[in-house]
Amino acid sequence: MSYDLVVKGGTVVSASDTFVADIGVADGRVAAVGRIEEPGRKTVDARGKVVLPGGIDAHTHFDMPFMGATTIDDFTTGTTGAVFGGTTSIIDFAIQSKGRTFRHALDDWHKRAAGRCAADYGFHMIATDFTADRELEMSKMIDEGVSSFKLFMAYPGSLMSDDGAIFRALQRTKDNGGMVCMHAENGSVISVLVKQALAAGHVSPEWHALTRPMTAEAEATRRAIALAELAAAPLYIVHLSAGGALEEVRRARARGLPVFAETCPQYLYLSHDDYRRPGFEGAKFVMSPPLRPKGNEEKLWEGLGRNDLQVVSTDHCSFNMKDGGKSPGKVLGKKDFSKIPNGAPGVEYRMLLLWDAVQKGRITENRFVALTATNPAKIFGLYPRKGHLNPGADADIVVLDPNKTHTFSAKNHHVAADYNPYEGKTVKGSIRDVFVRGTAMVEGGKWTGRTTHGKFLRRTPRSFDLAL
Amino acid sequence: MSYDLVVKGGTVVSASDTFVADIGVADGRVAAVGRIEEPGRKTVDARGKVVLPGGIDAHTHFDMPFMGATTIDDFTTGTTGAVFGGTTSIIDFAIQSKGRTFRHALDDWHKRAAGRCAADYGFHMIATDFTADRELEMSKMIDEGVSSFKLFMAYPGSLMSDDGAIFRALQRTKDNGGMVCMHAENGSVISVLVKQALAAGHVSPEWHALTRPMTAEAEATRRAIALAELAAAPLYIVHLSAGGALEEVRRARARGLPVFAETCPQYLYLSHDDYRRPGFEGAKFVMSPPLRPKGNEEKLWEGLGRNDLQVVSTDHCSFNMKDGGKSPGKVLGKKDFSKIPNGAPGVEYRMLLLWDAVQKGRITENRFVALTATNPAKIFGLYPRKGHLNPGADADIVVLDPNKTHTFSAKNHHVAADYNPYEGKTVKGSIRDVFVRGTAMVEGGKWTGRTTHGKFLRRTPRSFDLAL
Amino acid sequence: MSYDLVVKGGTVVSASDTFVADIGVADGRVAAVGRIEEPGRKTVDARGKVVLPGGIDAHTHFDMPFMGATTIDDFTTGTTGAVFGGTTSIIDFAIQSKGRTFRHALDDWHKRAAGRCAADYGFHMIATDFTADRELEMSKMIDEGVSSFKLFMAYPGSLMSDDGAIFRALQRTKDNGGMVCMHAENGSVISVLVKQALAAGHVSPEWHALTRPMTAEAEATRRAIALAELAAAPLYIVHLSAGGALEEVRRARARGLPVFAETCPQYLYLSHDDYRRPGFEGAKFVMSPPLRPKGNEEKLWEGLGRNDLQVVSTDHCSFNMKDGGKSPGKVLGKKDFSKIPNGAPGVEYRMLLLWDAVQKGRITENRFVALTATNPAKIFGLYPRKGHLNPGADADIVVLDPNKTHTFSAKNHHVAADYNPYEGKTVKGSIRDVFVRGTAMVEGGKWTGRTTHGKFLRRTPRSFDLAL
Amino acid sequence: MSYDLVVKGGTVVSASDTFVADIGVADGRVAAVGRIEEPGRKTVDARGKVVLPGGIDAHTHFDMPFMGATTIDDFTTGTTGAVFGGTTSIIDFAIQSKGRTFRHALDDWHKRAAGRCAADYGFHMIATDFTADRELEMSKMIDEGVSSFKLFMAYPGSLMSDDGAIFRALQRTKDNGGMVCMHAENGSVISVLVKQALAAGHVSPEWHALTRPMTAEAEATRRAIALAELAAAPLYIVHLSAGGALEEVRRARARGLPVFAETCPQYLYLSHDDYRRPGFEGAKFVMSPPLRPKGNEEKLWEGLGRNDLQVVSTDHCSFNMKDGGKSPGKVLGKKDFSKIPNGAPGVEYRMLLLWDAVQKGRITENRFVALTATNPAKIFGLYPRKGHLNPGADADIVVLDPNKTHTFSAKNHHVAADYNPYEGKTVKGSIRDVFVRGTAMVEGGKWTGRTTHGKFLRRTPRSFDLAL
Repeated sequence: MSYDLVVKGGTVVSASDTFVADIGVADGRVAAVGRIEEPGRKTVDARGKVVLPGGIDAHTHFDMPFMGATTIDDFTTGTTGAVFGGTTSIIDFAIQSKGRTFRHALDDWHKRAAGRCAADYGFHMIATDFTADRELEMSKMIDEGVSSFKLFMAYPGSLMSDDGAIFRALQRTKDNGGMVCMHAENGSVISVLVKQALAAGHVSPEWHALTRPMTAEAEATRRAIALAELAAAPLYIVHLSAGGALEEVRRARARGLPVFAETCPQYLYLSHDDYRRPGFEGAKFVMSPPLRPKGNEEKLWEGLGRNDLQVVSTDHCSFNMKDGGKSPGKVLGKKDFSKIPNGAPGVEYRMLLLWDAVQKGRITENRFVALTATNPAKIFGLYPRKGHLNPGADADIVVLDPNKTHTFSAKNHHVAADYNPYEGKTVKGSIRDVFVRGTAMVEGGKWTGRTTHGKFLRRTPRSFDLAL
Repeated sequence: MSYDLVVKGGTVVSASDTFVADIGVADGRVAAVGRIEEPGRKTVDARGKVVLPGGIDAHTHFDMPFMGATTIDDFTTGTTGAVFGGTTSIIDFAIQSKGRTFRHALDDWHKRAAGRCAADYGFHMIATDFTADRELEMSKMIDEGVSSFKLFMAYPGSLMSDDGAIFRALQRTKDNGGMVCMHAENGSVISVLVKQALAAGHVSPEWHALTRPMTAEAEATRRAIALAELAAAPLYIVHLSAGGALEEVRRARARGLPVFAETCPQYLYLSHDDYRRPGFEGAKFVMSPPLRPKGNEEKLWEGLGRNDLQVVSTDHCSFNMKDGGKSPGKVLGKKDFSKIPNGAPGVEYRMLLLWDAVQKGRITENRFVALTATNPAKIFGLYPRKGHLNPGADADIVVLDPNKTHTFSAKNHHVAADYNPYEGKTVKGSIRDVFVRGTAMVEGGKWTGRTTHGKFLRRTPRSFDLAL
Repeated sequence: MSYDLVVKGGTVVSASDTFVADIGVADGRVAAVGRIEEPGRKTVDARGKVVLPGGIDAHTHFDMPFMGATTIDDFTTGTTGAVFGGTTSIIDFAIQSKGRTFRHALDDWHKRAAGRCAADYGFHMIATDFTADRELEMSKMIDEGVSSFKLFMAYPGSLMSDDGAIFRALQRTKDNGGMVCMHAENGSVISVLVKQALAAGHVSPEWHALTRPMTAEAEATRRAIALAELAAAPLYIVHLSAGGALEEVRRARARGLPVFAETCPQYLYLSHDDYRRPGFEGAKFVMSPPLRPKGNEEKLWEGLGRNDLQVVSTDHCSFNMKDGGKSPGKVLGKKDFSKIPNGAPGVEYRMLLLWDAVQKGRITENRFVALTATNPAKIFGLYPRKGHLNPGADADIVVLDPNKTHTFSAKNHHVAADYNPYEGKTVKGSIRDVFVRGTAMVEGGKWTGRTTHGKFLRRTPRSFDLAL
Repeated sequence: MSYDLVVKGGTVVSASDTFVADIGVADGRVAAVGRIEEPGRKTVDARGKVVLPGGIDAHTHFDMPFMGATTIDDFTTGTTGAVFGGTTSIIDFAIQSKGRTFRHALDDWHKRAAGRCAADYGFHMIATDFTADRELEMSKMIDEGVSSFKLFMAYPGSLMSDDGAIFRALQRTKDNGGMVCMHAENGSVISVLVKQALAAGHVSPEWHALTRPMTAEAEATRRAIALAELAAAPLYIVHLSAGGALEEVRRARARGLPVFAETCPQYLYLSHDDYRRPGFEGAKFVMSPPLRPKGNEEKLWEGLGRNDLQVVSTDHCSFNMKDGGKSPGKVLGKKDFSKIPNGAPGVEYRMLLLWDAVQKGRITENRFVALTATNPAKIFGLYPRKGHLNPGADADIVVLDPNKTHTFSAKNHHVAADYNPYEGKTVKGSIRDVFVRGTAMVEGGKWTGRTTHGKFLRRTPRSFDLAL
């Protein structure tokens, strides 16, 4: 048969297997894997290279108003960075405003993203006041392909839901095919600690972390699990950072509960020490949960290796250090750590940072694929369309050169942020080519695509296997 | 020397030792233990009997307004029943009203109790709105001998404190010598379940239990422990009922945290099945936390044996089944389980119920003494005045006849309640004599004391040993 | 290109993915997976069918002398049954005799198997006296493709090694690429119990199980793990049967130790109750470890689902119930349970028994493939040649009809045993076609192959990933 | 009444209580505790001092032939040192020789001890070949007051029993009132490691520890527990040293098994680092199990605090560093660590070393009494005669001055050893007076007793409470 694209001779990696094969693409999908003798309309030599399913980043915040600022990456710069970094699908968060409908939020976010994405994109829905009306509206969102709902146990007064609301949301997802994603930190306690710190004159960025202790995350994680257990519903913990929180997830899974969790590269590669950088530089790392003390990352690595953690996403939520342009930056909190917009860029760095762990023997290449693509696809209703490179899947293909190195820097990245949290860090491995549904977006490390290529991903209701 | 009282030849039990000895009392205190040749002004033959330190019930609610009713036992009937049952000290709860001071509540409760107690009595203070003023007022209460403060994670809208308030209270007790006592159930979740049950037409007493699941208690227990850990403060969990909650206490103690917990006889001897008694009879057992499913009690017994639980108290909180007299009764909730006043009588039954467990080999007689007297004395600032029978201690002495039996019944109990949760149950062991500070209150099972004998117990600030 | 065989339109299952594709085979290997338009020299319609990698049974005993008998299945009947059941590779055990070399045993077993196998076959080596010479000889065996060594903690006086010998074997495998496989039961204790039972006149088959308690397996498993940890070597526990033993494996893996374990279908589907069948029928199930009490199997299922167990093999070791033919049968132990030859047939039933668990939602189809093919291939040096159906792999292909049923019976099985432990059990799923290296062996449930098709599998030294 | 001795005004400590009282002694027993106005024939002023029950050291080896030497302390010097150190009862070990009876060993040891003891003394019986005859002979020993039997999992070829023998011994103690005491180290593995170390030219004392890893102790501990569980018998682990072994005891106790364990001061206060002292000095610390790496002691302290460990004994087993006198010394192993006689002195230091932990807040004074006196008395059939100071108990009384200090040294100790493992260490606390059955042995730190005062302790069969 005839192929639009043939990727020749690469080492193809799936979540379970590794083998050398050609990949033939037709109509944007993988048509065949194996020995392909027919030339494609386009042929790429991948001998000696690693061929991976395009990454899925299940946690980004593009073009998002937050804490008096707006994230500096919109859907164009965000997804362009994503694709450069080997991520071909993202799931962003639409935010319901208090007193308004999910529908209103979804329309808003569709406007923000439509025609502005290089990668394919979907949405989770954030609920800020989960009334009885919102309960009912959930299934409409699921019909629209928005099958996951994020609630917050942190940020009292703005985003935080009380346990009753969380419980009702979980009860609904038991049957409606939705999935609750939880930001698990005890906001009430953090609020007390923040006030006390400010009252004591502590204003520097490090105090952001000192007022958000790991125990506050472990507690909320345990609580969310209890509420899910009571509701007989599954649960997905976002951006898990603390070893104690992981222990709670591990206990829940050992009891057979359908609890899932993601961590993010910043919790694996950065630490509390970064808040002690000179001047205001610690603000670069102000995010929630905060970076954790050195040593904690070992527990996360163990969790990734043993399937206590199922996904690595980024929580990309970028603000500039400097003001200017479309939004104020981190300097908003120069004199008060609690006013520093929370978040940091990440979508472009995830795949290479994690591949580095493969090089170092921390995880296998198969586990890499599971964490970055197959698992998020299965959990969030994108499988079998996304998340693997077997026949029938979207031809989201990444060709990685394992022998080249990459050095992270704000000078060479493609997201809009004016800093790079990993500035100067060099890893083994370099993204050479990226295809989204068979269309070349990056070739030889250069952009050859269109930033409007991305399509909305209408996700299916939850039907994944509990044994994931 | 000369003794006011000599108790001759009994088998004396302490929290660690068992031996035969005479006990000589002078000036209300134990003066000597051993072979006493001088006759006392009064001599009691205790040969073949068990001599125990008077019980301390750290959890009673006498003369308490609650849920539109008032507990049917006031301090007179309550403490009289206590003494008949071998309990010579109780700690009741003063309740701060929203917007008012601890002082106001303490004055109120002093009025309720003063001159009306057979047993010695102390107070915990319940905080219902823990403002910054209340934070400051804590140490005044401690100066007054009220060194423990109860907060609620249940009863939203009336008693429940949010996590921030609880955390602030714990922070204060880190240094001020106070101790936080916690009612640990997730009130928000329970509130949702109650509304859903009523909306579905479920109104019978059993639904009280069905809407207060064990997981809601385990969750809150874990959360309270996390808040205490963050505050570096000790914590005392009241009326722990669920195996899952016990597991959280066990985990905390295994990590070296100063976490303590009590359970109550009703969770050891009664079960969810009692809610299924015919008609409205289940209302007798409506209390919070509710009785748990059969089998759960085994975990509590293990916890008592292994020192995961340190205290057995009663949560005596009695309402009549019928209306009439000073207060409406359980019938308030005849058509709506959520309106049934929560609570049941217990103060008079505890000692014999638990002694039954000694007879059956579930706990040792030494452990019995630790759970009913020595440990509550140490935890709540009554030691070394109370809780043991070594020289110097208050001569609160119970002479128990191990060869007689006792049958529980509303017909023979001395508290005011018009029912007995253990109606008809027979145990081996009978309380023969009870002395409070050397004064005979009960002799040969008959009342010989005054119901005004009891004195206020000014408790010392917390200074117990973490290894308790 | 041209294919020798095309399997069209089946649902292909790997250890991580499920998708519809054609499979093209050339030169005995998978050449392409996907949409294949060229007809193969042979084409099989697999639409609506499940296409699986051929099963690998890592634990069989064909043509083995044991306990005064010889297993009734030789390599011909054993591997024929295997292929009928969807298993295309087996690993059998050569047995070193005391005082003789591994080489001698390997030569012997090569003679038993060569030219008599339908499936591909490899060997583990059983060490019975692990002297210093045997230590040195291990690496020669590894060079010959025999890279795993089984030792026994049971059967004192015949097969049992002492802890020192086991430890030395483990020390060697730390570096030489070998793997120790352990039969973990405390033989010394079992020996005492057997003597006591016989002395008390207990001779029936059930006493085989009553004298081999689960604790004796858990203990030995823990001990083997400790020895492996001390030697810094990996360990593979064979035929794990008891929940307590699984708990030890789980603890070890949670600590990051490279410990692996298999269980067998008999421990999942049969139970101690089968020993209570009338007459001598319990002898059918006399094997070591024995079948375990009902309820224990739940723990094994949990272990399979959570990756505490990595492999399902059979420990196929068949004896007839009746004497006659080449060997005495189970009746050897008619009057003394300890003389019943230990073992039962299994190689032919494994795949369908486990597929039944997929139907019932106990494990996913992907986990099925991992347990029956991918994992044993990776652990025992057969990967990437065996264990999956990606391009380059041996075309060991099973076409399973998920809509047909299969009823197990000695009347329709192809192994030599005169009974079937699952007699009368019906499962959903039926093996339709089986290909070994692209050659049809079974088509439409009928034999179309040669019983001499199987080749010796020279396995590579251990190099698997610890995160398996 | 009239007292032979009155100890006035001391702070009396029991395993649960602390109080100020006089103690009146008559006929060698405590007659009264409290306010005593009559003067005794002898009166001791204990105001400001701590009054403790005399220590019980359940693990000493006096006058014992071992490894080609004999312990340098005989019963006279050993028990004299004990009494100086506040220990008033010891339990030593009689050793059955292979092929001979328990009776023979008991006669032998009675001869060694009779008329030569300052402290009261009892015996455990060590079994070295546990034949069927020895099984039967156990109950005769129990009749003689020797109700505990030690077996070894270490020292293959000399002391080690195989698992079958251990199991049979445990089976017997299920019913005969005996108790098995276990030296839990995997001797087979240690033997391999020792041979390998010597073959590699490693001969220095540190290699004693390097060839006895903690895992070998944890494994054997787990195994002993499994055998006891199978036999439904209690178990006492002697000289537990490794955190991993403690974890096994903890797990067993959490499951309700009657498993008990002792540790020794050397594992709390010394560490592996002591083996690295210059020259041959490390030999002073050669004992089995060996001293463990720094940090391990923290786990033991936790275990002492939480009742995972019930007893602190010493395993006093002293050899001189130099040869000469009645026995060769540690120099036997100058060129081969495996020939260094195993053991060190301890009986004289235990009480003050552990009191130091009370001073430092690691354990309470009540826990001190439980660990050093009450618990060993209860476990080993000496209670209620020994182990407390309530009326009726033997008047074994220690008056400790908490305000003085003591510096350990070979120059001031009273045992025969020519070195002190704690040389130069100063602790807060000093033993002032010691009474054995009311008779002054040490007064004001000076010897005033007779070294023949000690009597044989005929211990009662096991009947302790599992909840200990």
